[in-house]
Amino acid sequence: MTFLDLHAPANDLTRQLIDIPSVSGGEAAIADAVEAALAQCGHLEITRDGDAIVARTTLGRAERVIIAGHLDTVPIKNNVPSSRTRDGLGIIGRGATDMKGGVAVMLSLAAELVEPTRDITWVFYDHEEVEESKNGLGRLSRRHPELIAGDFAVLCEPTQAQIEGGCNGTIRMDIVLSGKAAHSARSWKGVNAIHAAAPVLAALAAYEPRTVEVDGLQYREGLNAVGVTGGIAGNVIPDECIITVNYRFAPSLTTDDAVQHVRDVLAASGVGEFSTVVTDRADACRPGLDALIALGFVDAVASTGAPEPRAKLGWTDVARFGALGIPAVNYGPGDPELAHADLEWCAINEIHQCRAGLAAWLTS
Amino acid sequence: MTFLDLHAPANDLTRQLIDIPSVSGGEAAIADAVEAALAQCGHLEITRDGDAIVARTTLGRAERVIIAGHLDTVPIKNNVPSSRTRDGLGIIGRGATDMKGGVAVMLSLAAELVEPTRDITWVFYDHEEVEESKNGLGRLSRRHPELIAGDFAVLCEPTQAQIEGGCNGTIRMDIVLSGKAAHSARSWKGVNAIHAAAPVLAALAAYEPRTVEVDGLQYREGLNAVGVTGGIAGNVIPDECIITVNYRFAPSLTTDDAVQHVRDVLAASGVGEFSTVVTDRADACRPGLDALIALGFVDAVASTGAPEPRAKLGWTDVARFGALGIPAVNYGPGDPELAHADLEWCAINEIHQCRAGLAAWLTS
Repeated sequence: MTFLDLHAPANDLTRQLIDIPSVSGGEAAIADAVEAALAQCGHLEITRDGDAIVARTTLGRAERVIIAGHLDTVPIKNNVPSSRTRDGLGIIGRGATDMKGGVAVMLSLAAELVEPTRDITWVFYDHEEVEESKNGLGRLSRRHPELIAGDFAVLCEPTQAQIEGGCNGTIRMDIVLSGKAAHSARSWKGVNAIHAAAPVLAALAAYEPRTVEVDGLQYREGLNAVGVTGGIAGNVIPDECIITVNYRFAPSLTTDDAVQHVRDVLAASGVGEFSTVVTDRADACRPGLDALIALGFVDAVASTGAPEPRAKLGWTDVARFGALGIPAVNYGPGDPELAHADLEWCAINEIHQCRAGLAAWLTS
Repeated sequence: MTFLDLHAPANDLTRQLIDIPSVSGGEAAIADAVEAALAQCGHLEITRDGDAIVARTTLGRAERVIIAGHLDTVPIKNNVPSSRTRDGLGIIGRGATDMKGGVAVMLSLAAELVEPTRDITWVFYDHEEVEESKNGLGRLSRRHPELIAGDFAVLCEPTQAQIEGGCNGTIRMDIVLSGKAAHSARSWKGVNAIHAAAPVLAALAAYEPRTVEVDGLQYREGLNAVGVTGGIAGNVIPDECIITVNYRFAPSLTTDDAVQHVRDVLAASGVGEFSTVVTDRADACRPGLDALIALGFVDAVASTGAPEPRAKLGWTDVARFGALGIPAVNYGPGDPELAHADLEWCAINEIHQCRAGLAAWLTS
């Protein structure tokens, strides 16, 4: 088993972590290494569930914060072991950005912060990069909700060392339009379900997405057709057309609100009869940056020179905290645009900057 | 080899033909039987090409008519050998309608009409029920255009013993709409190609198909989306949407005219940039019922009690004659709605009626 040196500089620790391959489903080795290293820290209470590890301080502080990151990566593309960028300022390797830089910051602080000003629950989990049903954080929240209870959560996904609060929610709905089949040589005997899609698509084309302020951040929404299918043969008037829409909605809405909003847009479009099937739904998450506990965090991150907090628009696992009523933010080293890229790399200064931001918050 | 008795009543001959299985690709046996039977007729000049047989009178008449039918059927569904309907008035079996009733009428008259008033080219062909490239009539028109030259053509496809003149043409076009892909969480960075389909579908929904009079018959057209596809993933703004349209057009138009008409409708819709790909094109065919040669035919059929000629709306092989500049009509026993049905059957009186109509024309 690899021995992880939690007292090494966080950039060195990042490389140690990259050098333990941990593609989703193959996290046992890295989880073993993380567990063994944390077990050396007498101030932490360790729980392991599958390949997830929860390490908690139990100082009886008034507040508890959760700091979480996943151990798995997408498949390796000739980018393990790690290397340095030519200028020496970055680390190259699978997971450098998503998200072993963030995990290194967490492990480094977990070992160092023996007496933080707030109790901390460090969560390292598996299966983030694969289907939702396997997600380790989801599993922990179902099996051990008490272990991940808290007042505020930070997910160390890459944000280039700035706070990206909460996240938009997302739903997908199939809009099913019906018609009546007929031979296309006698088209007047049928009812064309594809033609019936015209007002729906016109309404989506004309739709002006809202930007909603939540807890001081601006969440830009989006409502789009992401798929359309209809027709069974070149000589048949189609009796069905299905439009798949994706609505990305601000944390001011529940998923039920979001479904109703799409239905309202459809009803106002003038479309005829239709039915809807919600095929995917994921809650939004409020950033909670107006809560007292968050203010110190925002100040600490600002002291590292980071720009003002902004809204997270893509969906992330922070929403799992949101579903438990825990406000959450994303904050970690690395450019999210490089996540999953073959040339994934992370700027070393962002690793140190994040470590400094979290340390300042948790010790002040 | 089965011996066909061309002097038997045409309904009996229909049953003899049904009892020789001749699913497309397996026409050799029926073609052998037809060739052998026609070879007994000294007044006919016989040519065989593959499993197609052309039998011509060569009386030096001023006019020549072509009378054609295909020998093949769709696959047998426990409906060979033939049987009688319970009331005795119909023949049941694969091909009863499509189109061994018509072929029986042709063979019966080919043997009987030793001295018709017009020269006759009887064409029996293979591979009508399968892909266009195998079609026996198409092959003959390429290899032996001189053999199927003439002034007027009758295709004995089922029409319930009335004249259905010419046929509508048909084209299929893919309308390709382009956009710009983006993650759906940042949809404003993309351009949604499915939304771009709205004006096209609205134009198709609002389109009022024309009814065009050609040579005295009314051809009802149709312009329809028969397929639509777009979108590659639930979180991607689609960069392409393809609408497949089918235009069934009257014989007043060439296929080039038809393509231009669809482009005109699109251009008037207000849609943005698009490209088109014509994926299928089949000429229409004029009925030619205003020609002198047709008048006697119309009168002869009317004398059998048939209703007025009407336009054929579905595409049939008459268009192959149209492409050679030969006006053509459909005229045969059987209900076209029963073609290919497991319970395919043909009314015996329609067989006799068609035989009488053609005989009256060709002897007057």
